[in-house]
Amino acid sequence: MLLSSVTMTKYVYSFEEGNKEMKALLGGKGANLAQMTSIGLEVPPGFTVTSEACLQYLKDDELPPEVESQMREKMEVLEELTGKKFGDKNNPLLVSVRSGAAISMPGMMDTVLNLGLNKDTLEGLKEQTNERFAYDSYRRFLNMFGEVVRDIPHSQFEERMDEVKKEKGVENDLDLDTKDMKEVCDRYADLVGDIPYDPWDQLLEAVKSVFRSWNNKRAIKYREINGVPHNMGTAVNVQSMVFGNTGPDSGSGVAFTRNPSTGENEVYGEFLMNAQGEDVVAGIRTPHHLDELKGIMPEIHSQLKYVCKILENEYGEMQDMEFTIECGKLYILQTRDGKRSPNAAVKIAYDMAMEDLISKETALMRIKGDQIEKLLHKSIDPDADVNVIAKGLNASPGAACGSVVFDTDEAARRGEAGEDIILVRPETTPDDIHGLAASRGVLTSRGGKTSHAALVARGMGQPCVAGAESISIDLEDQCFRVGDVTVMKDDIITIDGTSGEVVLGEAPLVEPDFSLEFQEMLRWADEVRTLGVRMNADTPEDAKKGMELGAEGIGLCRTEHMFFDLERLGAVHEMIIADSEEERMKALEKITPYQKKDFYELFQVLDGYPIVIRLLDPPLHEFAPTDSESQKNLAKSTGMDIKEIRRKVARLEESNPMLGHRGCRLGIIYPEIYKMQVRAILEAAIEAREQGCVVKPRIMVPLIGTKEELKFLKDNVVQPTAEKVFSERGNMVEFKVGTMIEIPRAALTADEIAQEAEFFSFGTNDLTQMTFGFSRDDVGTFVPQYIEQGILKEDPFHSLDEDGVGLLINICVEKGRKINESMSMGICGEHGGEPNSIKFSHRAGLDYVSCSPYRVPIARISAAQARIQFNPS
Amino acid sequence: MLLSSVTMTKYVYSFEEGNKEMKALLGGKGANLAQMTSIGLEVPPGFTVTSEACLQYLKDDELPPEVESQMREKMEVLEELTGKKFGDKNNPLLVSVRSGAAISMPGMMDTVLNLGLNKDTLEGLKEQTNERFAYDSYRRFLNMFGEVVRDIPHSQFEERMDEVKKEKGVENDLDLDTKDMKEVCDRYADLVGDIPYDPWDQLLEAVKSVFRSWNNKRAIKYREINGVPHNMGTAVNVQSMVFGNTGPDSGSGVAFTRNPSTGENEVYGEFLMNAQGEDVVAGIRTPHHLDELKGIMPEIHSQLKYVCKILENEYGEMQDMEFTIECGKLYILQTRDGKRSPNAAVKIAYDMAMEDLISKETALMRIKGDQIEKLLHKSIDPDADVNVIAKGLNASPGAACGSVVFDTDEAARRGEAGEDIILVRPETTPDDIHGLAASRGVLTSRGGKTSHAALVARGMGQPCVAGAESISIDLEDQCFRVGDVTVMKDDIITIDGTSGEVVLGEAPLVEPDFSLEFQEMLRWADEVRTLGVRMNADTPEDAKKGMELGAEGIGLCRTEHMFFDLERLGAVHEMIIADSEEERMKALEKITPYQKKDFYELFQVLDGYPIVIRLLDPPLHEFAPTDSESQKNLAKSTGMDIKEIRRKVARLEESNPMLGHRGCRLGIIYPEIYKMQVRAILEAAIEAREQGCVVKPRIMVPLIGTKEELKFLKDNVVQPTAEKVFSERGNMVEFKVGTMIEIPRAALTADEIAQEAEFFSFGTNDLTQMTFGFSRDDVGTFVPQYIEQGILKEDPFHSLDEDGVGLLINICVEKGRKINESMSMGICGEHGGEPNSIKFSHRAGLDYVSCSPYRVPIARISAAQARIQFNPS
Repeated sequence: MLLSSVTMTKYVYSFEEGNKEMKALLGGKGANLAQMTSIGLEVPPGFTVTSEACLQYLKDDELPPEVESQMREKMEVLEELTGKKFGDKNNPLLVSVRSGAAISMPGMMDTVLNLGLNKDTLEGLKEQTNERFAYDSYRRFLNMFGEVVRDIPHSQFEERMDEVKKEKGVENDLDLDTKDMKEVCDRYADLVGDIPYDPWDQLLEAVKSVFRSWNNKRAIKYREINGVPHNMGTAVNVQSMVFGNTGPDSGSGVAFTRNPSTGENEVYGEFLMNAQGEDVVAGIRTPHHLDELKGIMPEIHSQLKYVCKILENEYGEMQDMEFTIECGKLYILQTRDGKRSPNAAVKIAYDMAMEDLISKETALMRIKGDQIEKLLHKSIDPDADVNVIAKGLNASPGAACGSVVFDTDEAARRGEAGEDIILVRPETTPDDIHGLAASRGVLTSRGGKTSHAALVARGMGQPCVAGAESISIDLEDQCFRVGDVTVMKDDIITIDGTSGEVVLGEAPLVEPDFSLEFQEMLRWADEVRTLGVRMNADTPEDAKKGMELGAEGIGLCRTEHMFFDLERLGAVHEMIIADSEEERMKALEKITPYQKKDFYELFQVLDGYPIVIRLLDPPLHEFAPTDSESQKNLAKSTGMDIKEIRRKVARLEESNPMLGHRGCRLGIIYPEIYKMQVRAILEAAIEAREQGCVVKPRIMVPLIGTKEELKFLKDNVVQPTAEKVFSERGNMVEFKVGTMIEIPRAALTADEIAQEAEFFSFGTNDLTQMTFGFSRDDVGTFVPQYIEQGILKEDPFHSLDEDGVGLLINICVEKGRKINESMSMGICGEHGGEPNSIKFSHRAGLDYVSCSPYRVPIARISAAQARIQFNPS
Repeated sequence: MLLSSVTMTKYVYSFEEGNKEMKALLGGKGANLAQMTSIGLEVPPGFTVTSEACLQYLKDDELPPEVESQMREKMEVLEELTGKKFGDKNNPLLVSVRSGAAISMPGMMDTVLNLGLNKDTLEGLKEQTNERFAYDSYRRFLNMFGEVVRDIPHSQFEERMDEVKKEKGVENDLDLDTKDMKEVCDRYADLVGDIPYDPWDQLLEAVKSVFRSWNNKRAIKYREINGVPHNMGTAVNVQSMVFGNTGPDSGSGVAFTRNPSTGENEVYGEFLMNAQGEDVVAGIRTPHHLDELKGIMPEIHSQLKYVCKILENEYGEMQDMEFTIECGKLYILQTRDGKRSPNAAVKIAYDMAMEDLISKETALMRIKGDQIEKLLHKSIDPDADVNVIAKGLNASPGAACGSVVFDTDEAARRGEAGEDIILVRPETTPDDIHGLAASRGVLTSRGGKTSHAALVARGMGQPCVAGAESISIDLEDQCFRVGDVTVMKDDIITIDGTSGEVVLGEAPLVEPDFSLEFQEMLRWADEVRTLGVRMNADTPEDAKKGMELGAEGIGLCRTEHMFFDLERLGAVHEMIIADSEEERMKALEKITPYQKKDFYELFQVLDGYPIVIRLLDPPLHEFAPTDSESQKNLAKSTGMDIKEIRRKVARLEESNPMLGHRGCRLGIIYPEIYKMQVRAILEAAIEAREQGCVVKPRIMVPLIGTKEELKFLKDNVVQPTAEKVFSERGNMVEFKVGTMIEIPRAALTADEIAQEAEFFSFGTNDLTQMTFGFSRDDVGTFVPQYIEQGILKEDPFHSLDEDGVGLLINICVEKGRKINESMSMGICGEHGGEPNSIKFSHRAGLDYVSCSPYRVPIARISAAQARIQFNPS
């Protein structure tokens, strides 16, 4: 064997050897330390053991032999640079050992400080510094080594510290003197047991522990849930210690290059003099605002500002960094992209683009969908002290406060009278719409993020906490209980649909902020994106809101909501129990003027933009009079026997209404319903155009599963009605007829259906229901557990399932475009407002997404991001 | 223009020019007339105008000019052959004009006889024959010309005939004398109006009318429903008339080459002397059995037998032919494949193969699935005079008779005591199983062919008429009403699940016939087919039946049926309301021995064949105690408050149970249920093997939608349980773990799922439900109308939808086999017993179908047919 022919793998890099692009090999922390070193910032010297070494170790169960030798080489450099010696009892070099994977990942072992201490080097440290400092450092080392390397729970160290404090009669660590600290060290040493004496053994054990932690359960789970590959491994950083707690000219702190809550372009941070970094965040002493450092150490303060400037230039991103001042000298220990509030995110991205630090496209990529969501709604003041009594699903964002009401009619009455009402129901049904509409928000104990309450609330831009399973609603006693708390009717609660929290009493709310910067960035997004953004809107009010927020038309106008209006419900009930087509027609004629008025107003608002109007979709029993009062009214108005009415209502019941007599199936069996709707649409369109509006009606037939259904409805309903209306009016309008793609079979046979349809709109809610076999009203019993156990990565009703539902969409697009290359296709399910699903829509080649008006800004940004990410210019 | 270079299209063929292979051009009738002519049978001479001429006419709205000239040429030949002349007043040639498409198709115009008559040729006919005959011939011509060419309703002719008979005071046509017949002719002539005088004009008009009738509404509808292409067109046959009504040595009749009801190899038929063909079928005179012809005209009789022999040799198929004897001479007017009873079909195919007339493969191709079905079940005696009061869906074949009972428990009690009970329910639920099992048959007023009642009945091989919507069940008064009839409890009814008929009173039933010929043919089928046939069986009794009928294992053993057993239901109820895993385990332990015993017995029956056992599938609420008696019992046995029990039961309710918490979702949330089942399966398998059986357990996880679900259950339920059982027993068995493919997403992501599954079994019932978005319990409100209007060609729960569901299966097979080439795949839905779906399964490359035991013979034959049809050897 010719050893000389074997290339030695380089497993260890000194900070001088790396840069910020080497995250995969050096981890995020290591790459940034290297970068800072290379641009001349004062970083305590150190080296990084690569993630490749980690993978090799995990494979062989032993470190590659080169690792130790390479570490020893690099350690010699450290020793030269620091003038100290690792393991030297007179002038010991101490190091920190920290994990650092390419992607920041909770669950892995983190940090061991002061490594290199043993009974002999401790003596050296004592002499170099002072006895108390040395013992304090030693106990920190013992604690971290015990936790990280020996898996001893943190609480056991705390217990021993507390014993000593108790024995001494003090409450604060700082009140322990040298002797006490020594006592702590002794007890810690007992707890940890055998710690290698040789610092090299300490170091190798620590490195291996960090490597092993890559495969601990929490880390694996985290990677599974977040889709992080398991084969990346983690790097380890070994860095010479600097101490912020060696005296009054030392200190530690954290700094953000810009204000993380407002986004202002000013260095923002906190520090403590004579303290180690962990003390700043531990909350034992209250840290000071960074501005105060100016008074204490003006030069350090201005150095820090300068470092911030350099880092931003270097990274083109707001940085969050840690620093230590040791004996008047500033060291930078770490830097990373800083977390920030939604408002700050927008302002920073915008400002940086305007400062030419980054491009507009990069700025757009910086804004996350969930941040935008938070910009648009009120929220509970994060600084307020509130009593959270329950947590449900954050089903519709925003916070609201009001009196608890359990009865829908009461909620409607009191809400319309101007009271602030929170409607609390086990779940809601279409019958509850009027109560929902009049309330400030809704809380349900059952149902998921796409339950009826959630859908309606999102549509209305109203806060909703859904499926708060810990609350138990007692409709008889008009109260709900959660734990020991009983909330009675009329009690005040606050719900936060962004967080899912339910708060007892009135919590202070924060107004939404829609900054000029954000508005400007939305304009940038419009310039960049190729995917259209429409809104799902059923009323002129919603439509106006959506147009203000930048929608380019209505992608889904649900006509059934128009049926639930109280004024019309009587006629709807008459239609449902009608025995013959004639009776049904008579009832429908009463509804026609209302529908027509709705459409007319929508055409006026949408002037020039398309409106996709879906014909009636829900099964008739959703409109049926189920309460005895409506039944009595109906008996009175129709002269029908109430028993007969009940029988008819009962006959409408279905085992699985989701898969029952609804959508186009209704339109085929009762053509007169769709005829009325088509008439209302076309008459409204003609009249609006006569008033000078540009009208673009699009008639959408729901729940098509076969080409023949659509053909039947076109031939027997749409076409004859249109001809009739046009000849009556002596006028005509152009319109298109298309279909929802929400039945798997429709997607699978899209080449057939495209022969009849002029456009496709993916109803991804139902498509997801049927592709998964999930009823969105019922999955609350298992989907949360699925997500918890990693069986599902995400709720497929929230973020579109690309492997299954997405594949159907891809099949449909391909087959449909084969027949009609320029066919308009879009998504109008809830997914139309969810960033990942919007990006999928872009990639799938759709023309637009349609979402609730309040999500239009999110869709505009996400669509731009998709274009930038997948079709970079 | 060089006319000589234009090839003249040949639009008219004399019978001498064609043969039986030319059906596309000459139509079935024309091709057969040509064939018979070419083999020397005595066919009245004639010619055929091709379907090409029809298409050209329909395109141009005028006959191609060559048609008339070519017809005239051929007419000259006819005139030579017959010695008569078309339009000649002394010796007129009369012809019949009949449509004849390639595929026999109702709805098109059919026949004009005696064409060529006008006031002058009538005189000639009078002289050639006699006056009454001439007028009778003329009125027949007028009638048919009027109907076929002038669209005059038949009833208007009948009215006029009736007037004349009334005026004369007679009841029978034969009692009208020459004068009366002339009167009839006059009135018919008035009714029809202008009839062309020139026989050529008559002929051209008649030909064009037949051509046009290709596009009449009924014909188009028929083609749409039956998938017949619209671009085939129809041919027209023009044939010289022969008359069976010229005197005592003339006659007409029909003959089958074999007995169409028994299949015996004997000529069978009926005839009338001195009569035209239409008189034989019109029912005015009672025709005689063909044997009687032997006494009257022995030579003709033996000629006829000889012709039959020749025709069978020629066609290799039993023929149904029409003949006319004119003045002692036998003419054959038409031949076609004869319709026959199911028994006859089998016997004829078998006999012909044994006679070497056809191959065994051809014989197998001759048997239709629906014929086999009729062989296997009792039926109402077709000759009996019964009072049909309602018609529902033919949901499970066979007929049964018994006392009407509405209450399930009563049905169970009385049925078990030996009474013949027909259970009548609006619909059934799993709670009704015991009543269903003890009844002779079940009648429901709601639900489709795959409703619960239908499924269970088919599984049990019990008759079921489902969704008889015309009956209205009054459970309070214990009766049902239909029209004016009220059927009380204890009244006797007969139901026929093969026809869907409900008969008042006891109808005589005919025993099923399972002939030796059929058994032999099943063996032939087994030699031919490559597709396996398994059965769906849950009990040892079913399994035995299926093995007798030739099943090669169990493709689906549903374990939930084992839960419904009355003995076990108490423990099942306890399990359902259990609050903790421990309580659930305690209840499950009570069920384990029962399940184990079930499996043990199945392993004994299946000795050597695989058993695919599906873990629990239905949602728990299907087993929940919903009646107050069970609730009381449960309260007693558990000591739980009955209110609490009710609350728990209510909490299990779901909006769309089909898409809810069932299948593997149950197994994931309550792993102990599946653990119990896996334990019962494996312990039973070990014990059966210890008793000398060869066991092949296959554990099937239902309702898988994601790979992660299956992986979770394998890792957390199946594998640990198996290890535990094997170590407890000190013994192990091989088993496989696979999954149902019944969620569209599972099919779409089969490459993922195949990484975890060892076999796939398509649950096509649920797959159809979700692919179409059809709940089989609810589609009764629209699917029948869909089928009626041609929106659906067939009920997709009956015959597999190849375009949608089939595409998913194809995707799944391709993706699955990419991962595991030899993976076993089969169908275990209801479709596994339906011939077209079985053929699809063969083409899709599946390994087997699995169907209810009673359908195993159908599956064996259909599988053989698929092999012969799609992979001819």
